[in-house]
Formats: sequence, structure tokens, C-alpha cells
Amino acid sequence: MQKLTLKKIAKELDVSISTVSKALSDSHEISKDTRQKIQAFAKLYNYRPNNIALSLKNKKTKTLGVIIPEIVHHFFTTVVSGIEKVANERGYNVIIGLSNESFSKEVINMDMLANGSIDGFIISVARETQLKKDFHHLHETINQGMPIVMFDRVLPEIACDKVVVDDAEGARKAVLNLIDAGCRNIGIITTEDHVSVGKLRTGGYEAALKERNIPLDEGFELKLKDELNEEENIEELAKVIATYLKDHPAIDGIFAVNEIYALSAMKAARYLGKHIPKDLKVIGFTDGMLSKYATPSLTTVSQHGKLLGEKAAFLLIERLEKDHLEPPFETIIVETELVERESTKQF
Amino acid sequence: MQKLTLKKIAKELDVSISTVSKALSDSHEISKDTRQKIQAFAKLYNYRPNNIALSLKNKKTKTLGVIIPEIVHHFFTTVVSGIEKVANERGYNVIIGLSNESFSKEVINMDMLANGSIDGFIISVARETQLKKDFHHLHETINQGMPIVMFDRVLPEIACDKVVVDDAEGARKAVLNLIDAGCRNIGIITTEDHVSVGKLRTGGYEAALKERNIPLDEGFELKLKDELNEEENIEELAKVIATYLKDHPAIDGIFAVNEIYALSAMKAARYLGKHIPKDLKVIGFTDGMLSKYATPSLTTVSQHGKLLGEKAAFLLIERLEKDHLEPPFETIIVETELVERESTKQF
Repeated sequence: MQKLTLKKIAKELDVSISTVSKALSDSHEISKDTRQKIQAFAKLYNYRPNNIALSLKNKKTKTLGVIIPEIVHHFFTTVVSGIEKVANERGYNVIIGLSNESFSKEVINMDMLANGSIDGFIISVARETQLKKDFHHLHETINQGMPIVMFDRVLPEIACDKVVVDDAEGARKAVLNLIDAGCRNIGIITTEDHVSVGKLRTGGYEAALKERNIPLDEGFELKLKDELNEEENIEELAKVIATYLKDHPAIDGIFAVNEIYALSAMKAARYLGKHIPKDLKVIGFTDGMLSKYATPSLTTVSQHGKLLGEKAAFLLIERLEKDHLEPPFETIIVETELVERESTKQF
Repeated sequence: MQKLTLKKIAKELDVSISTVSKALSDSHEISKDTRQKIQAFAKLYNYRPNNIALSLKNKKTKTLGVIIPEIVHHFFTTVVSGIEKVANERGYNVIIGLSNESFSKEVINMDMLANGSIDGFIISVARETQLKKDFHHLHETINQGMPIVMFDRVLPEIACDKVVVDDAEGARKAVLNLIDAGCRNIGIITTEDHVSVGKLRTGGYEAALKERNIPLDEGFELKLKDELNEEENIEELAKVIATYLKDHPAIDGIFAVNEIYALSAMKAARYLGKHIPKDLKVIGFTDGMLSKYATPSLTTVSQHGKLLGEKAAFLLIERLEKDHLEPPFETIIVETELVERESTKQF
């Protein structure tokens, strides 16, 4: 017989994965009837939930589970390389699962790995998880005694160790840099508000403008839909940004919350015959390979991804080796660094 | 008690991981004494080798294990995105382990995942594995009934399904393109011979020159050491290539076996005041993001990484679902495509 998973129970009983997971942890969010039905089914088919696996806790696997939202993504892979470095130095293996920005894939992957394969998680949550605000799988994992370290996209609702960059401060410094370079009409290209880091960076942008008494023009804030992050929509992305730049011809500086948005803004500016950096200065968050090789090369806010990964692995291994799962928890804030290149040069 | 791993046995008995693994599979390459010692130790501490896990084979995990040599690498992550796509469509999960180009990490990761976490492997082997020519861990996995699909860096010594690109043919087409664009002194920047794809691509380069009666100048073949692929050696890499270009001023075309070598060649040419594409035309293998955004944009041989991953997942899932592990095995060759951009433009 194939192994029974949350997903299969959900499919069999025609309910959501989240409902199954909540019912199995006896959550009162789920009606008594549904809970009993799901629990009976799980019992009948011998479903082995995490807490049973975890009750065998003495058996350490010396393996860390890492869940990232995307893999064709320089920042996340750089973080993983930092996790690997420290894990290997300390004698741990690393296995990686992808959520592909999907809530249910995140739940399924955590469920799969927590079943005895790993000692703890390092995770950056999916966009959809942030949007749904359904965190039961994280609460449950922690409640069952498996430590979690969150990085980058962290959740205030979850009590655990965290590693982040100073998103708001990094954005603030970037926008101040644009102002100092002579920009007076600064636009921001950002994500929808449910992406925590996008929101924080937007906050830093607004703070910098306020600090220098530049009025906030809401039309200057371009919030891009999640779909535009898909690789197949890369042309569409540049077009949306070109329309925005055309609608706001006064814009002379752009702060973009990620590298692809920044490079797409440069491409859009080229469509419109705008010279970078003469007519438009651009800064992007995340210092990846593309920023270095772009023409003009892109000024960025470096996130030190590898260091983030090293810190996350360190925090998790320390908890595991001290077998100390209780509060207080730590949040390490890694400072960002402004890397100045051609896209913000003054003339 | 912590779980006993191959690595720990090796450390405890002060032998190599490879020796432990061979001794446990009762290989006669290992002396009888050593074998008995290792087997006794493993038995004493209850080591659970793969074949025990595999004897529980009825318990399908519906999970595929993927082992890649590097994660901060556009090609490998693109392949993984293709694997994920097909796996998800077919109801499978994917977990990823990294070898970091190390033989022993590859062995450890395969050992860990084969212990009941997955149903089969998709793997591109580490440089060091190709160099050592020690493939016992792959033979063993297959002998114990767990299917493997190899991609990109495949081994003729291993009987399994494979997915590759037409490396030699792709290289040949690229070099013919340089000749047609007027180049007569074409250099190649490649890896050491133990990297299978580097060797195949070098073969394609040599075939194209022969076909057009251009004599082969061995000085034109620059074989770069593995260390130069490390991210921290990126400046050193450009310097080595600059010296090579200086030593061979006649070179008017470069075929590089990967994107980073190609971009470094363009950087080196700039150091020497050579104009691209007027003085020097460049083509790189692997069509990544950097090629598109580079200035001048880079002509490349596209490997269709995502498609490679899709094919590999398809082959593995078919074997698993038909429960058919015997020969004949299949090798799917995915055609490469020359993507012409600015770096080979004619004047």
C-alpha cells in the first residue's frame, strides 16, 4: 500500500489539506463531525502523523530541512549555500523542499519531511501562506517539539528564531541615496502588501521621503501582482512598468524591491528612450549576479544571502544540540549594504 | 542515540566512506579483515543499510530524490523546476540534496535519502565522482532495486535511464557559426577532461574545425582548473583568461563551455581593449539569465534545462509506476538550440 499523506486524506474526503491537518491536531476551528470523520479515516488507514514520528525523538537524523519558495532564484539559492556551509562544518546534512509559492505544497513538504527525516526546519514562507494567513502547519510543528528558524519572509505570529535583513532600513538608505543624487520624483516598484518584505521595503521608502519633506504621491507606488513574477511573464512585466513610467513622466528615480523589477524598469526606460542614469536613476533590492553584469550595472541593496543562511543554520543547530526548544527566541537582523554602481551615477 | 551513518562509521574506524560503503555491500575490493571489522561494527550499532529500508519497498513514499552538484547555478535550478513541474502533475513530491561537487557528500546524501525517504533518484554527478571514477554508490542503489535517472553529467558505466543534451553537436554548431561569421582562429575555454560534458563539448569544437579544414592549435585550448569555478575566484578567472588572450593575439573567436567562462572572456577582452564582437566573437554554452542581460548580449547554445528536468521526472515516474526496473534503459537526447545575440554580430 502506498503511504497515506495529508494530501491523500484531503482528496479522499474532499476537504482541504488545511482542514485535514487541523482536524488531526484536533483544532476547534473544524466542526466536531468533520474532525471525527477525518480522525477515523486516518486511524483506519494507519496515518502516521508527525507527533508519532516525533515521539521517536531520541533518534536524531542530523539532517536539517530547508523549505524555500522558489529555486530559480539567486537570493534563495545563496541562502541555501550558507546553510550548507555551516551544516557541513557541524556534521549535518541538508535536504531541500520547494513550496513554489503555494500554501498546500508548503504544508505537504513540511509534513513529508517532519515524518522522521529531519531534526528541524529552516523556512522562508510562500507568498500564498502570507496571503491566506493560515499558519497552523508551523504552529503544529513547533508544538510537537520540532524547532523552526524562519528567514527573510518571517511571520510575527510565529514564536521561533528568525533571521532577517533590515528591510525597511535598507530601503530607506537606498531612497535617501536617490534623493542625494538629485532625484525629486521617486517611484517605487513593489509587491502586493501581503508579501512581508515588500511591505517593509515600501515602509522604508515612505520614511525616507517623509524625512526629506518630499510629499508622497500614491500614483508613484506601483504594486505588481504576484503573477508577474513568473518567468514566462517577463515581457509583460517590462510592459506594465513602461506604462507606469509613461503615465508618470516626472519620475526621475526608481527604487525596486527586487532585482528583476529593477532590471525590468531599466528595460522599460530603454523602450521609452530614457537614459539611465541621466534621465532616470535606479536602485534594486537584492544584490545578485544580474546586477553586476547588467548594463548599466545596477546599484543595489545587498542582502548578504550567504551570511543569512549561515546564521539560520547556526541558530537551528544550537537549539538542536542544546535540546532547548523553549523561549526566549532570537531574531538576528543582518545589516544591508548599499552597493553603488552605474545606474545611480551623477552627471 | 543519534542515528548511525556511513560517515560516522568511517570516522569511528578511521577509514574512508567509500571503504565503509563497499565493505557493507561485501565488496571484494576491501580486505576480508576490514570488511569483517566494519560489518561487525555496523551490526553492533544497528546500522540500517539501504537494502533493509528497501525491503520495505511496498511502502511507496511518492517522493523523488534529486541530487545536484551546485545550487547557485541557473542550469541546475532550471532542471529542478522542470522536475518539480512533472512531479507535481503526477502527484509526487521532490526533495533535493546537494553534493557540492564532492564525492563523499554525494554518497552521504544518497545514503540518507535512500533510507526510506524516496522512491528513486534523479542525479547529475559531482565533478569529484567523475574524477575518482568511484561509482559504487550508484551501482549499489540500482542493485537494491531503487531506480536512478541521470541527467547532464551521465556515466557510460552506469546502466540506467539518462537525459542529456547533444553536447558535442551543440558545440559543433556553435563553432561552425563562428567560422561562418568570419573567425579563423577560434579558441575554446573548457574544463578539465574529467568533466564529461566539458570533454564532449571540446570534441564538438575539434570536429567543427576539422570539418572546415582549420588546423587544430593546441595552444588555443584553455582547460581551466575546477577551483576557478568557485564564486570567490571570479576575478582570478577573468585574469587567467586575459593572460591566455594576450598570449594568443590571433584569436578572433571564443567558444566557452559555460556561461561564466563566456562572460569572463568578455570581461578579459575589455581589459585588453578588444571590442566584442568586432575584434572577438564569443559564444557560450548554457542559456541563462546572465546571457540575456549581458552587454553585449551573449550568443549561446541553449540547453532547455526545464525540458531536461521534465523528461527526467517522466522517465523516473514511468519506471516507478510500472514497477519495471530491468533493462532496456533509455537515453533521451534533447537537442540544443543556437540563440544568436550581439556577441557574434558581423560587421
